[in-house]
Amino acid sequence: MKEVMAIVRQNKVNVTKEALASAGIPAFTCRKVLGRGKKLIDMNLITTIVENGELPLDSTGEHLSETTRLIPKRVFTLVVEDAQVSKVVDAIMEVNSTDNPGDGKIFVLPIYENYQVRNGEATTEAY
Amino acid sequence: MKEVMAIVRQNKVNVTKEALASAGIPAFTCRKVLGRGKKLIDMNLITTIVENGELPLDSTGEHLSETTRLIPKRVFTLVVEDAQVSKVVDAIMEVNSTDNPGDGKIFVLPIYENYQVRNGEATTEAY
Amino acid sequence: MKEVMAIVRQNKVNVTKEALASAGIPAFTCRKVLGRGKKLIDMNLITTIVENGELPLDSTGEHLSETTRLIPKRVFTLVVEDAQVSKVVDAIMEVNSTDNPGDGKIFVLPIYENYQVRNGEATTEAY
Repeated sequence: MKEVMAIVRQNKVNVTKEALASAGIPAFTCRKVLGRGKKLIDMNLITTIVENGELPLDSTGEHLSETTRLIPKRVFTLVVEDAQVSKVVDAIMEVNSTDNPGDGKIFVLPIYENYQVRNGEATTEAY
Repeated sequence: MKEVMAIVRQNKVNVTKEALASAGIPAFTCRKVLGRGKKLIDMNLITTIVENGELPLDSTGEHLSETTRLIPKRVFTLVVEDAQVSKVVDAIMEVNSTDNPGDGKIFVLPIYENYQVRNGEATTEAY
Repeated sequence: MKEVMAIVRQNKVNVTKEALASAGIPAFTCRKVLGRGKKLIDMNLITTIVENGELPLDSTGEHLSETTRLIPKRVFTLVVEDAQVSKVVDAIMEVNSTDNPGDGKIFVLPIYENYQVRNGEATTEAY
C-alpha cells in the first residue's frame, strides 16, 4: 500500500473531495498547514494573493517574516492500494492544476502495515 | 525504526495517551485532522453523530459538501524501534476499538534516519 | 527523494524558516501539533515551561491529563533530493539545538514519487 500526500490550495478542498469520491476513493484526512514553494514571494504580489483568497484576514504575526511569508494550504493524506496510486494522482491533479505557481505537490510514500482499528484487520507487506 | 500513524476519534485522545504511557511509549505528537472513512455518511446519521460528540458545534461551511461530510479526528504520530511496533499497535487498538465504523486506522511507515536535535545523536538504517 | 520531518519548539519557527532559506531550501510546510518527548513532565516544571513560552495562555482541558501534559510544537515537512538531506538536517539542528530536553527530533522518510500539480512534472524512484 502507499500513502499519497497532496498539498493543495485551501480553496480547492471541496473539488478535491468530490474528485476523490468520483474516483471511488472515499477515505482520506485533510489538515491545515502553512507552507511555501520554491519561489520567494515578492511583496508586490501579496496584494494579488490576498485578492485570490490565499491569505486569511486574521493572519497573525506568526505567519510573517522579513524574507518569507507562509501561505495557508491544505494537505490531503490517503492510503491506497499500489494499483490505485496513479488514479488518485490523476484525480487530484485534474482539479488542482491551474497552471500557476502554488498549485501544490503530490508525494507518494510507502506504507508497510495497515490496521483497521475496529476489528484489527491488517495487511502487511514484505520489506 | 518505524513511524506509527494512528487516526482515532477525538474523544479517544486521553485514553490513547494513557495507553501509550502504560505501554512505556511516552513520546508522540497529536494533531487535528478532518477525515472520512470508506462509508458515505447518510445525512440521517448526522444527528446520531452529533449526539456522540463527533461534530464540533462551531462546524463551518468548509467541513460540509453535498456528498460528503468530514469528521474531526486526531492523528497520533510515534517513531519507535521496529521491535516496539506491535506493542504500540496493540495498545492503540485496545482502547480505540469499539466495533463501530469510524474507529480509525493505523499505518506503519519506514523511518530511515532519526536525529535528536538537542545533541545531534542519530540512528541511521541501511536502505 | 526524501521527506524530512522536523519537530521543533514553537518559538523556533522563524529562525528555522530563515535557516532553511539561507541553506537554499525554500519549500516546506509547517503545522501545529501537540506532543511530548520521552521525559514525563514533573508538574513542578510547568511554571518554568510557561515562563519559557512553551504553553499557550489559552490552553484548554484537552491538553491536560492527570499523567501527561502535551506541549505545543511545530512540525516542518520538507521534501528534498537525497543529496540535500544532510544539509537540511544540519541547518535545522544548528538553530534549534539549545542543549535542553524538548529541542525536538528530525526524521527522514522515503518518498517514492513526487509530482508538481501545476504541470504534472514527476520524479519517480525505483523501489
